Amino acid sequence: MNRLRRYLPILTWGAEYSPRTFANDLVAAVIVSIMLIPQSLAYALLVGLPPQVGLYASMAPLALYAIFGTSRALAVGPVAVASLMTGAAAGQIATQGTPEHLGAAIAIAMVAGVMLIAMGVLRLGFLANFLSHPVISGFITAAAVQISAGQVGPLLGIRSKGENLLDILQSIVPSLSQINPYTAAIGLASLVFLLWARRGLKSLLLRVGIGERPADLLAKVGPAMTIAATTAAVWGLGLDAHGVGTLGVVPKGLPALALPPFEVGLWTKLVVPALLICIVGYVESISVALTLAAKRRQRVDPDQELIALGVSDIGAAVSGGFPVAGALSRSVVNFDAGAQTPAAGAFTAVGVALATLFLTPLLFFLPKAVLGAIIISAVLSLVDLGALKHTYAYSKADFAAMAGTILLTWLEGVEAGLILGVALSIFLHLYATSRPHVAVVGQIPGTASFRNVARHAVVTDPEILSLRVDESLYFPNARFIEELVNDAVAANPAIRHIILECPAVNTIDASALESLEAINGRLKDGGITFHLSEVKGPVMDRLKRSHFLEELTGKVHLSQFDAVSSIKPDLARRTLDAPRL
Amino acid sequence: MNRLRRYLPILTWGAEYSPRTFANDLVAAVIVSIMLIPQSLAYALLVGLPPQVGLYASMAPLALYAIFGTSRALAVGPVAVASLMTGAAAGQIATQGTPEHLGAAIAIAMVAGVMLIAMGVLRLGFLANFLSHPVISGFITAAAVQISAGQVGPLLGIRSKGENLLDILQSIVPSLSQINPYTAAIGLASLVFLLWARRGLKSLLLRVGIGERPADLLAKVGPAMTIAATTAAVWGLGLDAHGVGTLGVVPKGLPALALPPFEVGLWTKLVVPALLICIVGYVESISVALTLAAKRRQRVDPDQELIALGVSDIGAAVSGGFPVAGALSRSVVNFDAGAQTPAAGAFTAVGVALATLFLTPLLFFLPKAVLGAIIISAVLSLVDLGALKHTYAYSKADFAAMAGTILLTWLEGVEAGLILGVALSIFLHLYATSRPHVAVVGQIPGTASFRNVARHAVVTDPEILSLRVDESLYFPNARFIEELVNDAVAANPAIRHIILECPAVNTIDASALESLEAINGRLKDGGITFHLSEVKGPVMDRLKRSHFLEELTGKVHLSQFDAVSSIKPDLARRTLDAPRL
Repeated sequence: MNRLRRYLPILTWGAEYSPRTFANDLVAAVIVSIMLIPQSLAYALLVGLPPQVGLYASMAPLALYAIFGTSRALAVGPVAVASLMTGAAAGQIATQGTPEHLGAAIAIAMVAGVMLIAMGVLRLGFLANFLSHPVISGFITAAAVQISAGQVGPLLGIRSKGENLLDILQSIVPSLSQINPYTAAIGLASLVFLLWARRGLKSLLLRVGIGERPADLLAKVGPAMTIAATTAAVWGLGLDAHGVGTLGVVPKGLPALALPPFEVGLWTKLVVPALLICIVGYVESISVALTLAAKRRQRVDPDQELIALGVSDIGAAVSGGFPVAGALSRSVVNFDAGAQTPAAGAFTAVGVALATLFLTPLLFFLPKAVLGAIIISAVLSLVDLGALKHTYAYSKADFAAMAGTILLTWLEGVEAGLILGVALSIFLHLYATSRPHVAVVGQIPGTASFRNVARHAVVTDPEILSLRVDESLYFPNARFIEELVNDAVAANPAIRHIILECPAVNTIDASALESLEAINGRLKDGGITFHLSEVKGPVMDRLKRSHFLEELTGKVHLSQFDAVSSIKPDLARRTLDAPRL
Repeated sequence: MNRLRRYLPILTWGAEYSPRTFANDLVAAVIVSIMLIPQSLAYALLVGLPPQVGLYASMAPLALYAIFGTSRALAVGPVAVASLMTGAAAGQIATQGTPEHLGAAIAIAMVAGVMLIAMGVLRLGFLANFLSHPVISGFITAAAVQISAGQVGPLLGIRSKGENLLDILQSIVPSLSQINPYTAAIGLASLVFLLWARRGLKSLLLRVGIGERPADLLAKVGPAMTIAATTAAVWGLGLDAHGVGTLGVVPKGLPALALPPFEVGLWTKLVVPALLICIVGYVESISVALTLAAKRRQRVDPDQELIALGVSDIGAAVSGGFPVAGALSRSVVNFDAGAQTPAAGAFTAVGVALATLFLTPLLFFLPKAVLGAIIISAVLSLVDLGALKHTYAYSKADFAAMAGTILLTWLEGVEAGLILGVALSIFLHLYATSRPHVAVVGQIPGTASFRNVARHAVVTDPEILSLRVDESLYFPNARFIEELVNDAVAANPAIRHIILECPAVNTIDASALESLEAINGRLKDGGITFHLSEVKGPVMDRLKRSHFLEELTGKVHLSQFDAVSSIKPDLARRTLDAPRL
């Protein structure tokens, strides 16, 4: 039963479900539905699919997440970055507008769903750790800029295309002369209104006497208001006759359920993009879920979240939709509007289903330019140039990983950009640890403490070289330590004893063990004894499983003072008894 | 002048060169030449090239290393593993026996040489660190087994081929019925003698009254003796008429010097194999060089070694040879035979040149099976199955990297095996650090010390959770800490303060900073203050460059005792004054 509860969180919160909770969840669901419907249409166009596919991706996944999800506020559904990535991957399989293109998008959702469930069951969530913060942050900024650039075409009524920023910009510039003034007017006006609505609408509502919370939530329905107003304008003024592109006939009714065909060849091609899409989606979802859960001291199970998102993706696939994830903006609105349980998501799905059944005829005159404006206004908040500045100040290596990911994404496209960004961040990490800080230490007079000779007045002995390595010893720095000891010995013929002080050494891997053995052997040939001091318990436990301790010419000492005392008892004692400086 | 001395070490040791040094170097050179000549012929066949190409690769590179090298004992020239890798890479460009195949091998030497020099000048030697010890050790064992399997064909007079162990074994088995008894007899007899000679010959020589050192060195000329005896037998008994394959005409005379044609297309294809060959060769060379230098407390400059090996490879390329490296066995013999300076290498080059000028006619009847036996006897000493056992005992992750590299090399060939091995080792390393050891700590009564609650009788407070993380905080484990704190808070509603004790945290990267900020923000939402204690100087310096310390709801304390004292002064003081248990 506990196992069942782990995999079906609905059993836990469902048992305590009350009318009051229901009322709260329902209010949140209404508001999120009004936000989600325009976004789902817009993100379908971002993938390059018919608008109703966005609605399909906004029903089954939400209902399924309500059963399997552990976050009480996460709003699942189409999201901008995953939609861009899905479009890029499907575009490599087939041309936009063909049934094969739609089939590829559905197959990506299926493969991503299966992968997420496998990762959840096998507890492989740590794979998401490979996406370091600078890489994911840089990638999302780069993707948001690229999405915005890609929507400039629809916004102005011109053609644009390209799988990376460079291509998109190159396709826009020559078309600028063919701007449709009606489309551009609607698009730009909508964009300006939407950007203003995100801040200005709320203060306006407050000023006309509407309360804080209702104003906050009403401001979120800006996109829906924009759609209503512009659709009415196109219909009333007959702007479609002036070349303003509209959605046209959006098929009415719920999607047919169907298992996507099992095509090994197609699925194999989609493994890499699906993996990237599901990891990026997961990282964003879990981050939002953890943040919202913390506000009410609730628990989120990261492994179960993998399963819940996986089931949601499979739900999207079998109902003709594309990959989904937890959406940052809608989740925050859901939480603020008072959602108490995942049931709010299921009610949102019902809202979308009602819209699909009854509202699609009203979308005939909806101008596509408005959807472009909705996309741009939604993703611009994802652009975080401040992160570049902060990261630069904090760490040059992390900044390089972030800037590299952004540039690679813009030049090579989302898939290559993300993979190269991960590779770059791992490379920079290994490089950074390949030259650890090493201090030559000596005894502080009047104490048993040893400190860096470069920073403190300490006592040393020409026959003893004491080195403190401020890093774990492992393959990126193993040879560095070898060369360091080798150089020190070659430069100081007086050295008879070397002590490696290891309080900061959290691990010694097989490469470093080999280096320590090599150092010990070479020092032995040169008539020098090799000691260790302050080795941590777990590290010592592991060293005992090797032959190193038997071969060691010196000893392993509990403290650096013990080490020096065993070699030069008089010196250590005299320094300890000396007056403190 | 100092800069010139750095790049031309010959200026340093050459200035002190004496007749006595000359005599020592000369003796060593004679012995190494007698070892090198048969090996160079054999390794040329291993690459799949005419035998004289091995001699060409054993002249210019040795002379050039004498000018640029910093190791006084490293014996440069053709080596088994690099020869196997060169053969595999050249085999992907052209068929064995064609001029294009030879051209590809020469081009690999050129590209590898340019890369090594670039790495040396730009101080990119750390790239070699990416080859962890388990990977290089596993790779060499796998390559040695594969080389041996590949020589079973020549040894028995049957055809065999393949770029990985699986293919080679599959090609040998069906041919076993076509064994040539004469070839097999010569091959197996030579192999048995060579394997015995490595140990038995020396003790035999000692028993007939020859001194320790001469016996040691005479035992090394086993291969030359075998060649002389078997060549004489083939000639005397006319065995070539019975199908024993011989070298035939080996062109006499020194190689013509020529710059290899600059073909961008070919060079681009060779970048990856050349990089792998030069890094594997460098890692082996520097390891031997450091070990031998330590015995006489001499210095080896790793960056200059890159340059010296690079110049040697370019020397090989312009004199019609293939990639070279420092050879383990010949370097040890060179050292033991008394080589004092790199001049010994130059004298060895003269020895090989004399052989090329005058001895090649004698090689006409040299049976190829003997060269197979020489290769097998040379590489079998590289097989280190004990390393698998030791590594398994020491670290399962390192063992997995080693065993994975061996299997991948045998199944996928040397190039893919090495690349996948490196990827595997990096993956396993990141995985291992993704779940660091974290202890909940409490105060030991009667002291200001804090220890793991699971191992010691300590005092804790239900409102304070103190966690000690025994690892640097960086991207592989950043989210782990977030989830850990999240779970702890959700499980213990009493918690009001969390203290992260950081004595083992050597670094906090941007990902971990982001996680700490998220933890701080979420705890703040839950009404919990977040503190740090015992943060190291360099880590603190970096934190000061972020906004984290301003946003931190708690403080950064010098010691864990200070942290608890600031929150619960009475508790900390009372525990400090309590009797020690």
